[in-house]
Amino acid sequence: MTASQSVSQGTTPGQTGKLGKPRLAFRPLPVPQVDVRGFWGDRVDAVATRTADILYERCVEARMLEQIDPDRPSPGVVIPFHSPSPDEAATAGNEFTGSTVTTQMFWDSDWGKTIETAAYSLYRRRNDALEKKIDAVIDMYGKLQQPDGYLSSWYQRIQPGLRWTNLRDCHELYCAGHLIEGAVAYYQATGKRKLLDIMCRYVDHIAETFGPEPGKKKGYCGHEEVELALVKLARVTGQQKYMDLARYFIDQRGQQPHYFDEEARARGADPRAYHFKTYEYSQSHKPVRDQDKVVGHAVRAMYLYSGMADIATEYGDDTLRVALDRLWDDLTTKNLYVTGGIGPSSHNEGFTADYDLPNDTAYAETCASVGLVFWASRMLGMGPNARYADMMERALYNGSISGLSLDGSLFFYENPLESRGEHNRWKWHRCPCCPPNIARMVASIGSYFYSLSDDALAVHLYGNSTARFDIAGTQIELTQASNYPWDGAVSITIEPEAPTEFTLHLRLPAWCRKAALKVNGEAVDLGSVTNDGYAAIRREWRKGDQVELDLEMAVDRFYANPEVRQDIGRVALARGPLIYCVEETDNAGQLHRIALPRTAQIEACEEPNLLGGVVTLSAVARKEVFEGWDDGLYRPEPPAVEEAKITAVPYFAWDNRDPGEMLVWLRDS
Amino acid sequence: MTASQSVSQGTTPGQTGKLGKPRLAFRPLPVPQVDVRGFWGDRVDAVATRTADILYERCVEARMLEQIDPDRPSPGVVIPFHSPSPDEAATAGNEFTGSTVTTQMFWDSDWGKTIETAAYSLYRRRNDALEKKIDAVIDMYGKLQQPDGYLSSWYQRIQPGLRWTNLRDCHELYCAGHLIEGAVAYYQATGKRKLLDIMCRYVDHIAETFGPEPGKKKGYCGHEEVELALVKLARVTGQQKYMDLARYFIDQRGQQPHYFDEEARARGADPRAYHFKTYEYSQSHKPVRDQDKVVGHAVRAMYLYSGMADIATEYGDDTLRVALDRLWDDLTTKNLYVTGGIGPSSHNEGFTADYDLPNDTAYAETCASVGLVFWASRMLGMGPNARYADMMERALYNGSISGLSLDGSLFFYENPLESRGEHNRWKWHRCPCCPPNIARMVASIGSYFYSLSDDALAVHLYGNSTARFDIAGTQIELTQASNYPWDGAVSITIEPEAPTEFTLHLRLPAWCRKAALKVNGEAVDLGSVTNDGYAAIRREWRKGDQVELDLEMAVDRFYANPEVRQDIGRVALARGPLIYCVEETDNAGQLHRIALPRTAQIEACEEPNLLGGVVTLSAVARKEVFEGWDDGLYRPEPPAVEEAKITAVPYFAWDNRDPGEMLVWLRDS
Repeated sequence: MTASQSVSQGTTPGQTGKLGKPRLAFRPLPVPQVDVRGFWGDRVDAVATRTADILYERCVEARMLEQIDPDRPSPGVVIPFHSPSPDEAATAGNEFTGSTVTTQMFWDSDWGKTIETAAYSLYRRRNDALEKKIDAVIDMYGKLQQPDGYLSSWYQRIQPGLRWTNLRDCHELYCAGHLIEGAVAYYQATGKRKLLDIMCRYVDHIAETFGPEPGKKKGYCGHEEVELALVKLARVTGQQKYMDLARYFIDQRGQQPHYFDEEARARGADPRAYHFKTYEYSQSHKPVRDQDKVVGHAVRAMYLYSGMADIATEYGDDTLRVALDRLWDDLTTKNLYVTGGIGPSSHNEGFTADYDLPNDTAYAETCASVGLVFWASRMLGMGPNARYADMMERALYNGSISGLSLDGSLFFYENPLESRGEHNRWKWHRCPCCPPNIARMVASIGSYFYSLSDDALAVHLYGNSTARFDIAGTQIELTQASNYPWDGAVSITIEPEAPTEFTLHLRLPAWCRKAALKVNGEAVDLGSVTNDGYAAIRREWRKGDQVELDLEMAVDRFYANPEVRQDIGRVALARGPLIYCVEETDNAGQLHRIALPRTAQIEACEEPNLLGGVVTLSAVARKEVFEGWDDGLYRPEPPAVEEAKITAVPYFAWDNRDPGEMLVWLRDS
Repeated sequence: MTASQSVSQGTTPGQTGKLGKPRLAFRPLPVPQVDVRGFWGDRVDAVATRTADILYERCVEARMLEQIDPDRPSPGVVIPFHSPSPDEAATAGNEFTGSTVTTQMFWDSDWGKTIETAAYSLYRRRNDALEKKIDAVIDMYGKLQQPDGYLSSWYQRIQPGLRWTNLRDCHELYCAGHLIEGAVAYYQATGKRKLLDIMCRYVDHIAETFGPEPGKKKGYCGHEEVELALVKLARVTGQQKYMDLARYFIDQRGQQPHYFDEEARARGADPRAYHFKTYEYSQSHKPVRDQDKVVGHAVRAMYLYSGMADIATEYGDDTLRVALDRLWDDLTTKNLYVTGGIGPSSHNEGFTADYDLPNDTAYAETCASVGLVFWASRMLGMGPNARYADMMERALYNGSISGLSLDGSLFFYENPLESRGEHNRWKWHRCPCCPPNIARMVASIGSYFYSLSDDALAVHLYGNSTARFDIAGTQIELTQASNYPWDGAVSITIEPEAPTEFTLHLRLPAWCRKAALKVNGEAVDLGSVTNDGYAAIRREWRKGDQVELDLEMAVDRFYANPEVRQDIGRVALARGPLIYCVEETDNAGQLHRIALPRTAQIEACEEPNLLGGVVTLSAVARKEVFEGWDDGLYRPEPPAVEEAKITAVPYFAWDNRDPGEMLVWLRDS
């Protein structure tokens, strides 16, 4: 069977294939089936009009094309990096400047994510020039692919002859995973199947190499990713064997004898000579069903749990679900920033000790919050549950999109919750994983809004948008009108081709203390229809049916568990899904002097001309004054205090104006 | 002239030589002239009975003898370190364990400080075995010394032929300085002049090598130390040329063309290829009289300012004094921990930005606080002034002696003001500068108690002690009886051989809000006799004259300047000269939960059996409770609060019991 035959010929771009039906499975709507406007529309447009092109250009500048193009000489291991242009040099914190770059073993993954971003962007907005460039990249991969299907620019161009010898460290299957995701997205967005065929051919080779059968390798990747990618590939091609391969990688992880030990010995290396010291780093310290703590590299963890959730959904595997719920509890009750950021430490790019959540040194990688969105959205595959959707929303609106500037041109790798002014957005990074990751997430946001089962649609996110889907063969269009996240009023219009019975699940966010629901003007008693944080309305829907959901959006103060030493005596402000911060540009410097009285009134104010249009929060706070401190550092009398108005802006929008201090957790007084 | 001739034959150990008389100069009493008892007596005994031997043994274990002994093979650049003994391996944070050690270019300095500590200890308590070992070390240096007087184990044994080629980085004169200090102390304590003669011979060579005259090098050391050592050598030998050489090094520092630039070029090196990037690191960025910010490596800075203060005193040089006062202001109003710790950053082992005083990551090297004691005590050379003595006392009782365990066997390199329990005392360090530095300071504490001019004695520190000195040819004995620092009552008895007129200066500490003074039972109006924080009593003193000073010792709360973001909303406790901290062992864990109400009564309680006998402080504080936080990290309701008794102990005594958390700055509520 050739690769092109392996794609179900009956599927069309944007539709799922012919897999066996899992029970209760909700699958996200493919990106092309949802048009977003409003808040997310602006974000998607920024990616489609700027970021997508920037990603490609930066990859070229970083000489990534040289690694994948078999018509050029191999770049070798270290290549000099381009000289910075003056405006790059002027960008504070720009790590692009004056450095050299090492050819990276994971550059196929950056191409994969760049292709994926371009795909979603092309769907949003034609860009023939970009499409041509991506086609050329795909052509290079086509030429690069070996006759047996193998495809890795690193192992073919930089370390030939060493394929499949170091899964622990070398990102080989991880790269395959991202190219698969890029292939699926490009196929869905453009209908072009060349990369999809290439990747099916490669996956066929992988499936011949790895698996439970005698003679096959019993390995899996040190950096998870291929698992969730194989699920996507299985869904778009209808090929069960791709799904089974994903399950194999999940099931095999952490089994004894440990594959990474055996693989190291086969290389003639000491398995203990492992840079990261512990297999917790790659969540391979024990079989996945035995895991109960989120450990190690945060992005890897999120990608693993995402794959586990997909497999739990597709196979109805409750043993995985039980493990996932334990891990979810561990993450969300002990190891999560209020922004949805995760992984406090730069040392392992991941988790440390429970309740260790430093604010100024928070790593909280953009990719990790993006990964949390992936995981949470996949937990919704097992049915609507606000436990997961609330967290997805928190990570989406805060710790992930903080990683992308409002205009789509600059990035954060780390997302601290406190800065003295030295943390600023950069143009690129020597490990450029975050820019294409946040870009592909934003550009595919529509697929996180909704998920669909055989007879139900779940609405997880609110905001101006239109979704098109099909239930029992009937085409349905659902349109939301809402100024969310600035306002909690949501008006939904449902337009089925013909009257159709299905359940509409509407999320009632945890942040909302008072919600009201009407269907065609008639109030619905939420108490009687709500389960797992979703109101479920089952009826025969007819053209023009109207659902009105009114979510009261008040200002919230958040206090942290007293175990979190870094937040004790502090308070964070939120409104709806948004966490707020104070920035130096709105508040005279030295944000540490701000103390917010518990009695302070907090005013929400629409600012249409600020930061692309936001709601700010303001209050009268107290600040210690400097007067009387000229002659010393310490004295027996406490400092005098004055009143000072403070203004907070949404956290995701910080560092889009003058660089300066930023603070999420204000002193509580 | 030979070296032995260069020592004034008329001087006896413990007396100063025949230098020209500077105006107003107060010089510290030599160590053998002061016996301390009580608080400092216990500390000195710990050094004399344990630390002095430990220093020697650790130097031997680190194979430092091999570097200085010309009868053994040179150790080469890297030598394997000894295997740790089981109890060493068991010591948490012990950096001695399982490592290799690099032969260090500054090991002569560690020998110098070890000899100096041994000297003071031998004066305190005979120890024939140790004296014999030190004599053998001195013999090795005698054999090592080259015919022209040059003496450096590094350059003679490890890098022969390269002497005086890299003053910037290689500690060559710094090592000479510490050997000089060791020689002076050993001579004063034992009367043995061999090392003194060796060092005079070496200094004669240095004086022939460096100086303003044509053909001499215009250099100075990248690590200051030799300057203050030369002042000591001049004082003990009466040789003005040693004083002049010290002044030359001070005056020459930071002049243009920059010596370190020229020296680098002479080595064929690029002066810009300087690891530490800026000459601020070694305070050689500009001439010393133009300096107005404390910058760079904190120990180097303190040693430079100490030397500058000595030269200002000896030459009556007000241009230096003006610079020193600017630097003093900068240090004490912007860059000082409340413990007297200085230098917050491990990166440069020194200063960062004004008001940047992180508590948990404070470097606050023991050596730096010791250096602050050195500097402050030398500022007193220009006359009694509590501005300096208060700071000397603060650093002595807190940030310096915190570096030595109560029993004299374990050490701190860093002295943070907050610990989560992972910061523990160690047996040794690969850069073992702090153990002998704190040991020599403690063992010579008597010389910080008093300073003497032609017709005055200043009492800077209080505590059980007896001093013997000579004013206008009359021997005088002064005895303090006091339970200081636990109690502020000080009784002083003066026993001159014959009635003698002189001024007795008594420090009135800044922490004391109410003091009373009586001379022979008659009250003295302090307002009329106090200047610069010292009460001055001039009279003809007769045998048995009694001075009673009563310093009210209350509990103080300290608040930090609001510029210090790390301390805002926090309070530190003090009593008399002592800063307090809370430790986990006295207070259930999670010290971050403690908030001390402003209204809380704080009780002082004598605890004779705790930590060698201390006064503790206790109060009823408030703590956030965990109840109700099982299901999440963040919630809109603030945590409930309960009352909890807290107990604080003196900061210097922390980590002498069970390892655990520690905190100086408590939340203020």
